[in-house]
This record gives sequence, structure tokens and C-alpha cells, in this order.
Amino acid sequence: MSKSEKDFRAAAVSRIRGNRKTIDPARLFGLLRQGDRNALAQSITLVESNKPEDFDRAAELLERCMPLSGHSRRIGITGVPGVGKSTFIETFGNMLIDTGERVAVLAVDPSSRRSRGSILGDKTRMELLSRRQEAFIRPSPAAETLGGVARATRESIILCEAAGFTTIIVETVGVGQSETTVYGMVDFFLLLMLSGAGDELQGIKRGIMEMADALLITKADGNNINAAKAARRQYKSALHLYPETEKGWAPEVELCSALDRTGFDAFTDVLDAYFKLVKENNWLSKHRQKQALDWFDEALKTEWLRRMHDDPEMYARLKRIRQDVSDGILSPFVGARKLADGFVS
Amino acid sequence: MSKSEKDFRAAAVSRIRGNRKTIDPARLFGLLRQGDRNALAQSITLVESNKPEDFDRAAELLERCMPLSGHSRRIGITGVPGVGKSTFIETFGNMLIDTGERVAVLAVDPSSRRSRGSILGDKTRMELLSRRQEAFIRPSPAAETLGGVARATRESIILCEAAGFTTIIVETVGVGQSETTVYGMVDFFLLLMLSGAGDELQGIKRGIMEMADALLITKADGNNINAAKAARRQYKSALHLYPETEKGWAPEVELCSALDRTGFDAFTDVLDAYFKLVKENNWLSKHRQKQALDWFDEALKTEWLRRMHDDPEMYARLKRIRQDVSDGILSPFVGARKLADGFVS
Repeated sequence: MSKSEKDFRAAAVSRIRGNRKTIDPARLFGLLRQGDRNALAQSITLVESNKPEDFDRAAELLERCMPLSGHSRRIGITGVPGVGKSTFIETFGNMLIDTGERVAVLAVDPSSRRSRGSILGDKTRMELLSRRQEAFIRPSPAAETLGGVARATRESIILCEAAGFTTIIVETVGVGQSETTVYGMVDFFLLLMLSGAGDELQGIKRGIMEMADALLITKADGNNINAAKAARRQYKSALHLYPETEKGWAPEVELCSALDRTGFDAFTDVLDAYFKLVKENNWLSKHRQKQALDWFDEALKTEWLRRMHDDPEMYARLKRIRQDVSDGILSPFVGARKLADGFVS
Repeated sequence: MSKSEKDFRAAAVSRIRGNRKTIDPARLFGLLRQGDRNALAQSITLVESNKPEDFDRAAELLERCMPLSGHSRRIGITGVPGVGKSTFIETFGNMLIDTGERVAVLAVDPSSRRSRGSILGDKTRMELLSRRQEAFIRPSPAAETLGGVARATRESIILCEAAGFTTIIVETVGVGQSETTVYGMVDFFLLLMLSGAGDELQGIKRGIMEMADALLITKADGNNINAAKAARRQYKSALHLYPETEKGWAPEVELCSALDRTGFDAFTDVLDAYFKLVKENNWLSKHRQKQALDWFDEALKTEWLRRMHDDPEMYARLKRIRQDVSDGILSPFVGARKLADGFVS
């Protein structure tokens, strides 16, 4: 298909779709900055969209939001299924709101292909929180890849901040690569652990412990208290083995119980101390710059592949060259250069 | 600079450099396939080169070599400094040569910016091996990045195979990311360990143990024997915790001593059994296909960035957009798309 044919087709497609309700980014932004939660939900749907015709509007909306972003605490929370993440976020989120905060909860779960219906599921998991005006809960985007989920989540953080949310909680299930991804988009990383189980049994990889800024042992109540205290000692000594981090923060290990509502005040103090430190020593702003640049580099690479896949002629060449590489008749590096020669002006 | 200006400059540069000795790939290939070690060394220098004017010749040479490649055993070896990698390779390599093999040793060490002089260094480390006609020893390429070292090493494997080497040993120092890189280019991954030290003390990360197809405890001689046997029991039980691999191979743990020349025959049996298995169950060919495609995808991404950096106009735009991303006024993803819009036809 030639360039003019493509333009013609795109124009036709946009005429056909013209009658469907399109969202004006300027109007959406106006509502968003007033904290309108419906506008926020629509905005997130827009940045999650993979439809080419949505991209320009999403980009315009994001550009308007960027200057208003960056003022929240971005907190990542992980832990194996059953550790009580939802219960923790429900209690903690309500507490924050009582002190005047606005709390957004975003989920990152690349393993589930959740449909829209799951919003209800998430809201049921955090029933009290979801009923509050000052809260916003959003399930994991229905993207195909972790990369897609990550992009949508990161842009959603920007949108939530522009909508005036002051604490953004990014929740991930404790399996696979998603922790590292979430770590790359937050300021503070919290690991929830169960007492009475070795870290091997909890499926927590060693690398995850190293990323944690705090470790909370959940369900530290009733008969569990002694086991929880023993676990705290054990984790404390394990954490001492790690070298000190660049930001000069030593990870805290605390107990908590959503049932007894204990440990939440202590955790809030930990958070306050942490953000005071990383603001004062300038780590926070450097960290966010670095995160943004890492994501930019990653996005550039992805963009290159995406465009190759979108160009039918290039895609055919890509498949042919990949086949030759797979068959062992073309070196991967020579193949990559050959392909790029045909693509880049 | 316009396209025609660029072409003119490139032609001028090539005229000026015309009097320097250029290597004809066809001639180089002719010598290489006869097993000429000087031609092999020159060929590797050619594929290691980052000069744009060397690329076409390197690509031609590699394309000629591809059909002759793939017939060797590619063995990765790692272990902390002091574990005795060179001594092991020296003894093992000589043994293989005595049974009719031809052995190439390639090093991957992204931390050292070794100069050409270090070839002597590597040859001194493996003195007996380096004197044999059937051996070829090459130090780590002087590339700036692990990615550069990896590309050069992987293409060097192709060249060594075309030159008739039947066992390619890729040696890496036991630090950082280089093990994972080497793992991605070999068929069999050997981890050398010292006895009498916990794996933590040896700086071996858990992930490395999981990659190993065999674990050899070195210096298992004299007073060390009991400690080595205890270490073997310990590692054996540790390895049992890992799930079985797709290839259906359970990693072996053996002792060896270069001093007493013990353990080498047993290791050769392990290798033979391994390659018999992975050829029969077809894992080896699938694995190599997968490796080639992974490297191709990686190379494509790198190529995209490289070309952007090479184009002065694009590079200026890249720097400007990166700055906006770093300053938090442009979303990383929007920035990437904007940049790509200007680059891809």
C-alpha cells in the first residue's frame, strides 16, 4: 500500500468512526484537573487504548497533565497472594484519606486478562475504600504484555496526579517480573510478608527483598504474634546482609494487623521519615529523572519494533529475515542491520 | 548535512583510507576454512570493529561462514576469580585436543578495557594450551558495553566454527551480568566452585546456580578433599530444590583437581551424556534457534538507537526530547513516539 493509499484509508476509517463518541482532550483535562473521577477513568481508558486514532488525543492529554504531575507519593506494594494486600490497602487508604489525602490504587497484573467487569471485582475487594469520594481504584489494564501494562500504568500515575491524588498505590501480585516493573515506577517499595513461613516458601525471590524499602509482616495478631515477632528478627538480620543503598535508607521491618488495626501508625511514620530523607538528600528528584529516562529508552526501542510490525512491507521483510536467522543462514546482527537499512531513511 | 553531501564525504573518506591494507572477505574466508589461525584472528578483529566502513566486509565474511557454523559444542564456564578457571581450561583443553578436538577459548569480561597486549596475558595464563596448533585463545573484545562484547563474542563463535574448531569455550568472570550473557550464547553452562565456602561467600548469585548444567568443585586435592566432598553434598541437595528443566537434564556436581588431574574424565563423560541427550530430544537445535532469534530482537533494538546516534540531526532531537523527559515536561512514551515520527519514513 502506498503512502497516499494509506492516507486515504485512514481518512475513510475516521469518517466511518466519526459518529462514535470521541473524547476531546481539552475538555477531559478541564474535568480531570477538578478531580472528576469519571473523567479520570475515561482518561485512563484513553491512554490504555492501542488504537492508532486514539494516540494523538492521549498524547495531547498527557502533555497537558505533565506540569501538574509529580507531586504525589508513589508507593509500590507487593506480596504473595493471600498475604492480605487488598485488606492492607483498604485500611491504609482509609487512614490516609482521614488525614486529608486523596488515594489512587492502580493494579499491575500481567498474568490476568481481566475484562472491564473486574473493576467491580477490585471494588469489592476494597469495599470501604471504593465508596469514598477521595479514592480511585483501577484494575490492571487489559494489555497483552507486561510492557503494555507498564506503559498504561505509568501514564495513569500522571493522570491521577493531575487529578489531584496525593498518594498513588501501585499494587502487584508477587509473581514473575511485575515487581521489578513496579519498582521502576514508584518512590517507595513495600513488601508484605506472612509470618511463620520461610521466604522460600513464600515464593519471594531474593531480588525482591533487596528492592524493599520496608517490609511489613501482616496478620500479626492473636496466636500469630510470636511467630510474627520471630519473623521480624529473622528478616531484620537478613536485610543487614545487603549493602546500604545509594539513598542512605535502611529498610524497616514492622508488624501489622488489619484486624487489630495495629502497625499502621508506625508504617505512616516510616513513610514520612522516608520521604523527608529522600527529599532532603535530593534522591527523589534524581530517582524520578532516572526512571523517566529509563522508560524513554525502553519506549524508543518498543516504538521501533511497533512501527516495523505496522508496516506490511517491512513486516514481511522482518518475517523473512527472522526465518533466515532461525534457520542459521543469517547472523542475527547482520540480519538486524539489513532490516534497518530498508526502514530508516 | 544532506544525503548527497554525506555520500560525497563517505566516498572521500574511503579514497583517503584506500591505501591502508583492507582485508578481502573472500580471501579471508578461504584461509579461515582451512583452519588458518592468523586468518581467524584477523576475522575476529574485523567483526569486532565498530568502524562503519568495516561493516560490509564483516557481514560478507559472516554470511560465508554461517553455513559452516553450528557444529561445535559451545561451553560456557564461569566462577569467581581464584576458582581456577584458566587452570581448568588449560587442562581440559589439552585433554580434548589429545582426543582429536580443536579448541577455541573466548573470554567475556565487560569490566576490563583490555588492550591488544592482553592477548599475551591470556596466553600466559594458559601456556601449554596456547602453544598447541589445535588451540585458539582470544581475550575479551575491547568493546565499551557488555552488548558490544556480547555481539563480538557471538560472531566470533561463528568464525571459530567455520575455521573448524569443534569445542568453543566461552569464559566469563563471575561478576555482574556477564554470566547471563554467556548463558545466552552456549549449549552447556559450567559453574566452577571452591570448596569450603558457602555460595554467599563466593559471590555466586542464586540465579547463576540455576543456570548451571554442571557444577565442578575445583582444587579437590590434598587437605581439601573432605571439604570438597562436603560441598558436593551441600550443592547436590541445593540443586534438588530447583524444578526440572525443559531439557530433561539434572545438573551434575563433581569434584576435580588440576593438580592431581582427577575429575576431568568424569566431566568429559558428563558432557558426552549431556550432548547425547539434548541432540536426541531435539532441545539443542530448538535452543539454538531461540538464542538466534533472541539476539536478533536485541540487535534490532540496538541498531535503531545506534542509527539515531549516528544521524547528527536526529541526535540533536534525541537530546532535546530526553531533556524534556528528564525535566518532567514530556511523557517518556509520548517523547519516544515523537522522536520516531521524525526518523522513520
